[in-house]
Amino acid sequence: MNLPSWLETTSRNHPDKLALTFGEERWTFAELYRHVNAAAETLTSALPDPPGRIGILSANRPGFVLAVLAAVRLGIPVVPLNPRLSPAELAFQIADADITLLLADETHDAAAVAQSSRNLAVIPISSIENRPEKTLPSPCAQGEGLGVRVNLTAEAAVFYTSGTSGRPKGAILTYGNLWFSAISSVLHLGHRSHDVWLLTMPLFHVGGLAILFRSIIGATPVILHDRFDPQRALHAIDAGAALVSLVPAMLDRMLALRNDRPWPPHLRCILLGGSAAPPQLLETCLRLGIPVAPTYGLTEATSQVATLLPEQVQAHLGSSGRPLPLTDIRIVTEHGEAPPGAIGEIEIRGPTNFRGYLGDSEARDPDAWFATGDIGYLDDDGYLVVVDRRHDLIISGGENVYPAEIERVLRSHPLVADAGVVGIPHETWGARPIAVVVWRGDPTHADPELRRHCATELSSFKIPDRFVLATELPRTPSGKLLRRVLSEHIAPARRGT
Amino acid sequence: MNLPSWLETTSRNHPDKLALTFGEERWTFAELYRHVNAAAETLTSALPDPPGRIGILSANRPGFVLAVLAAVRLGIPVVPLNPRLSPAELAFQIADADITLLLADETHDAAAVAQSSRNLAVIPISSIENRPEKTLPSPCAQGEGLGVRVNLTAEAAVFYTSGTSGRPKGAILTYGNLWFSAISSVLHLGHRSHDVWLLTMPLFHVGGLAILFRSIIGATPVILHDRFDPQRALHAIDAGAALVSLVPAMLDRMLALRNDRPWPPHLRCILLGGSAAPPQLLETCLRLGIPVAPTYGLTEATSQVATLLPEQVQAHLGSSGRPLPLTDIRIVTEHGEAPPGAIGEIEIRGPTNFRGYLGDSEARDPDAWFATGDIGYLDDDGYLVVVDRRHDLIISGGENVYPAEIERVLRSHPLVADAGVVGIPHETWGARPIAVVVWRGDPTHADPELRRHCATELSSFKIPDRFVLATELPRTPSGKLLRRVLSEHIAPARRGT
Repeated sequence: MNLPSWLETTSRNHPDKLALTFGEERWTFAELYRHVNAAAETLTSALPDPPGRIGILSANRPGFVLAVLAAVRLGIPVVPLNPRLSPAELAFQIADADITLLLADETHDAAAVAQSSRNLAVIPISSIENRPEKTLPSPCAQGEGLGVRVNLTAEAAVFYTSGTSGRPKGAILTYGNLWFSAISSVLHLGHRSHDVWLLTMPLFHVGGLAILFRSIIGATPVILHDRFDPQRALHAIDAGAALVSLVPAMLDRMLALRNDRPWPPHLRCILLGGSAAPPQLLETCLRLGIPVAPTYGLTEATSQVATLLPEQVQAHLGSSGRPLPLTDIRIVTEHGEAPPGAIGEIEIRGPTNFRGYLGDSEARDPDAWFATGDIGYLDDDGYLVVVDRRHDLIISGGENVYPAEIERVLRSHPLVADAGVVGIPHETWGARPIAVVVWRGDPTHADPELRRHCATELSSFKIPDRFVLATELPRTPSGKLLRRVLSEHIAPARRGT
Repeated sequence: MNLPSWLETTSRNHPDKLALTFGEERWTFAELYRHVNAAAETLTSALPDPPGRIGILSANRPGFVLAVLAAVRLGIPVVPLNPRLSPAELAFQIADADITLLLADETHDAAAVAQSSRNLAVIPISSIENRPEKTLPSPCAQGEGLGVRVNLTAEAAVFYTSGTSGRPKGAILTYGNLWFSAISSVLHLGHRSHDVWLLTMPLFHVGGLAILFRSIIGATPVILHDRFDPQRALHAIDAGAALVSLVPAMLDRMLALRNDRPWPPHLRCILLGGSAAPPQLLETCLRLGIPVAPTYGLTEATSQVATLLPEQVQAHLGSSGRPLPLTDIRIVTEHGEAPPGAIGEIEIRGPTNFRGYLGDSEARDPDAWFATGDIGYLDDDGYLVVVDRRHDLIISGGENVYPAEIERVLRSHPLVADAGVVGIPHETWGARPIAVVVWRGDPTHADPELRRHCATELSSFKIPDRFVLATELPRTPSGKLLRRVLSEHIAPARRGT
């Protein structure tokens, strides 16, 4: 099933409308269209044959937007990579996803990355950022571009997300996943031609990229920030942003800066996702009249799954709202589908469900339910309450941290007999990983040695805050780690840790 | 490709929101959902096996809405029939579309209709209008209804539209056609949770039915009128309707009643379709600040194809606007695709293009261009200007009238040697058919006899206003009727005719 190209129809219908701002730079949709076409030419000449996938290793910047949209034009999947990946993690994902061309920003040593992987071309992302000549055809010229269509069932992007296996897995999203996600959000939140989105979430997360696609599909301008800065985010909202996605830690910092001064009335919705919204944060928003919308989402469902609308927060505090219009949710326990109020595993179905993981022997049935691993219930009014994210998942500052991945690294150290990782609540980051280790060496060496060992394999945000030594770990007779017991045995962090 | 059921997700997410009003009657989405389920049970017990298609022969009324939505739930295609069809036309469409169950309103003699067709069950449409008991399950009860999904590629409805062949043809629309049409309209016009649609167009036209589906998919209430009445339409707009579809003759009558009194500010958009909007009508709207949106659409594209937004009317008077986001338009002449400004045949492509006509040997390629037969051009800014509807098409009061169909009937009269039909402009109806006939009998008998003959075969609105006698008709050497020459030879109607 094919649709007309999103960027082309939007630039055809709204050529002079603002599409993107980044700092002092501005692009209309017609300018963005021309620039993306020029970027597509650059990528085409840099791509090997066969092309594999295009990796992007960068903070938010115009080149990121151009690379993604140029890849859509070429029909080549992109793999947005977390810039904080360790060299070992990066090499694994580049090989696993068959990335043949990598666009990297200046914080990465292109030569070093290229050496780490065979058959990889690395080009600076700045190389596609020079604006093309104005003489290039405009999107209104009839026929120009009409041949390019979007195949909804084709692969659009791969996002890495770790499973219980301890190895990150590449979740494959199709163009249809991205399109239906945008439409479902439009139906749920409404759609106004004067809406402006503030995009301060990283584009290498599905929640950031989904905002970009929603804006291209709906012809709504995006204010892009290179990274989250609470003062600049407040400034962008005061200057006209109507919609923004945040994680609770971000909103906390903005509230602290703003004090009780009022927020502008044009602000329609703050999508609050990533981890559970603390009740006191929501109560502050209610008191100040800030339109906050707690959201439950996950990579495998192209971000948004359920969203509590601002006008529903007062009556449904603690809920993540009703499912989006194109998503079905059910709760499943060992006894099958659960009635309202009963807690079980959250399962979801709909056209935003991903196609499967890289390396799966076959694609997922698009009509199959996806078991999220998250725990929750549907109340009598059909509102979802998420009781617990996957029991092994630690969400730290909006990043997913998977204990199994850290445990695998810890156990690879010759002096570690066993290791378990759990998350504990953290004032700033929501949660942080703590490791419990059965250590065979000198206890005084354990902390620096384990820290050094983790740093060679893991992104810095995955390195446990503390390494607690133990003589054995609580396990079931079949050997399964009892994380809940483990976390109960960890002493709370001392103040200031 | 399947989506969750539209009515079920909307009633799950908006159970207490107003869905439909009709006179003093009101339904919330949850009530509508229960009522549709009850109607589906009634239809199931009345349907033969195999079920064929469900015909609806009725003016706008709640039973029409319930029948359509119950058929969606059952996955059985509906055929909305024009209540003004002659018995012969009706019998043809019932047989051609394999209608096995017909829901008819009181203006039709059910027994007579049933006798006219073999294997046809006829039930009064009122039989599904009694509200079900309140004890039926609500849509929030988890699991209930989650099994019902909408297959976007399956057939949803057949609308009859005549071709040059002189025989009406059944255009097949899929659920996907209806869904993408609703979404494309939402993206083009915006979407607000407080929008209310006034539905005063007939539901047996695709333009009326499309409004119903748009409202179910977008969770926006519909005010349903049994027929167009300018005073009641004005009243509904004053009472809160934000969006309405009209043909120019309707808007004319509303403007005449309203005089220069202001229209309410909550009125967002009057979609003006059916036939070309007269410039003086648009100028009146501009002067009074009425948000009118001239629209080009056709049955084979599930209604809307291009819409000039209210804020664009001033600068683009005479245009039908830019294509909807999911539609591509190109202009084709004998030299191929035409450049901007060049006049040619309008061709369209996109997911709202119909699947084909009943009786076609194979389904249309969903990615193929559809040649509309209408004539127009795209200006330098990509706005469509419709120069002429299909040269043989007469649009009279919003109804399509096909000369070839009337000519076939005229030529079947034993005293008619030849016949040609053209449209001439009409103050109230936009255009009316006029017949030019080569008559072998007594000229004084021609008018009453031809009028009687047409009435046995044709809907009353298709009967020519006048029968002009001639000794021969202008034809090309190959025998093709020269309609343009024909219309130039018809004397203008006398005042009052």
